[in-house]
Amino acid sequence: MWTDAPASMLHQPSASASDDRAPAPTPAALPFPPPLPRTDGAGPTDAHLVARSADPLPSSSHPLAMEEAKAAQDRDHKFLSIAVEEAYRAVDCGHGRPFGAVVVRNDEVVVSCHNMVLKNTDPTAHAELTAIREACKKLGKIELSDCEMYASCEPCPMCFSAVHLSRIKRLVYGAKAEAAVAIGFDAFIADALGGTGHYRTANLEIKRADGNGALLAEQVFENTKGKFRLK
Amino acid sequence: MWTDAPASMLHQPSASASDDRAPAPTPAALPFPPPLPRTDGAGPTDAHLVARSADPLPSSSHPLAMEEAKAAQDRDHKFLSIAVEEAYRAVDCGHGRPFGAVVVRNDEVVVSCHNMVLKNTDPTAHAELTAIREACKKLGKIELSDCEMYASCEPCPMCFSAVHLSRIKRLVYGAKAEAAVAIGFDAFIADALGGTGHYRTANLEIKRADGNGALLAEQVFENTKGKFRLK
Repeated sequence: MWTDAPASMLHQPSASASDDRAPAPTPAALPFPPPLPRTDGAGPTDAHLVARSADPLPSSSHPLAMEEAKAAQDRDHKFLSIAVEEAYRAVDCGHGRPFGAVVVRNDEVVVSCHNMVLKNTDPTAHAELTAIREACKKLGKIELSDCEMYASCEPCPMCFSAVHLSRIKRLVYGAKAEAAVAIGFDAFIADALGGTGHYRTANLEIKRADGNGALLAEQVFENTKGKFRLK
Repeated sequence: MWTDAPASMLHQPSASASDDRAPAPTPAALPFPPPLPRTDGAGPTDAHLVARSADPLPSSSHPLAMEEAKAAQDRDHKFLSIAVEEAYRAVDCGHGRPFGAVVVRNDEVVVSCHNMVLKNTDPTAHAELTAIREACKKLGKIELSDCEMYASCEPCPMCFSAVHLSRIKRLVYGAKAEAAVAIGFDAFIADALGGTGHYRTANLEIKRADGNGALLAEQVFENTKGKFRLK
């Protein structure tokens, strides 16, 4: 559950960027939402790592409304977790910086991508831009108005503009851009949602993940710091 | 000369998007800066089409300073003309919308690109973004701090952000974004330079072409209107 995740959802970085990831648990053992992959062998005994939500589910006298709200939170958490996993993968594989993005349509993942700046020698190969390009290619169309994007971090102005151009209908992000800036990323990346561009008012629902979703996403930067090149 | 171009520099659109371009003139016949390619067979007799600069060269008592200013104008015009030519090519080839961009290093064209949104089924394949990607690939590096970009039109927020990310040192553009908005493009494209993003203050010289350069670039939209899909 989003608001009170098991400790196994908190990602521990691998010892080095070249380490292999631990094998995934069998489906039968997977809690819901599925935990992020671990590489350090630590188990549920890391109780001190459990993050608790600052934004509990809204209280309601109607059990059905509570159930729906929880289902929506779980759904968002499930897809955001994949984006966070991609962020770690970007660094572990040496492909780029710790950012991930997932495009979802009809509750199914269309593409799951990460930053490819170093691998592709392409400063525009941010996770979100890459995901939009790949999703359009896969779906054979230049607009994604029936899609949602889950991004491990608040998109930079380039990526946020690309989200607008692609007409994605909903954007859920984890970490605030400031968390990336804090470890050395260009402060400009925080300009998109903080800026005044009127394209903010487009037909786009923007949601910052709450509770563990946001925490897990922000931990990416601390956990990968020093493992990738910024320049 | 930038400020008083021959009529042959004013592009006339072809009768249809599928028309072939006229063969290029032999190098010996090229005026400096070279004229844009024509497809309608009209020649220098179109004197009424000659655009005159609203911004003549700065007066100076020193002939050498005048000469240098003129050379700089001619240089900018030469490269911007290539970007404008690419803008026409995007529509003529059916690849995308009428935008072109050129990356220049040490007075030489690194890449010359146009909008590939339709051809690549990629809403991010704007001319500037494509040019940055191709230039980085060609030069084998993710930063272009020794390069300039010439764009047929003021870059949209996505492309302007990409210019910033690539560390291009100088940007020269032709048409104002409003000229594109006037024929139906999303008004958001005018947000980059009109906005308040602090990345405007990066180490980047931004120049809007004056005189014929700006006029030729703005004519692109009127001349290609109706020949490409906006949706």
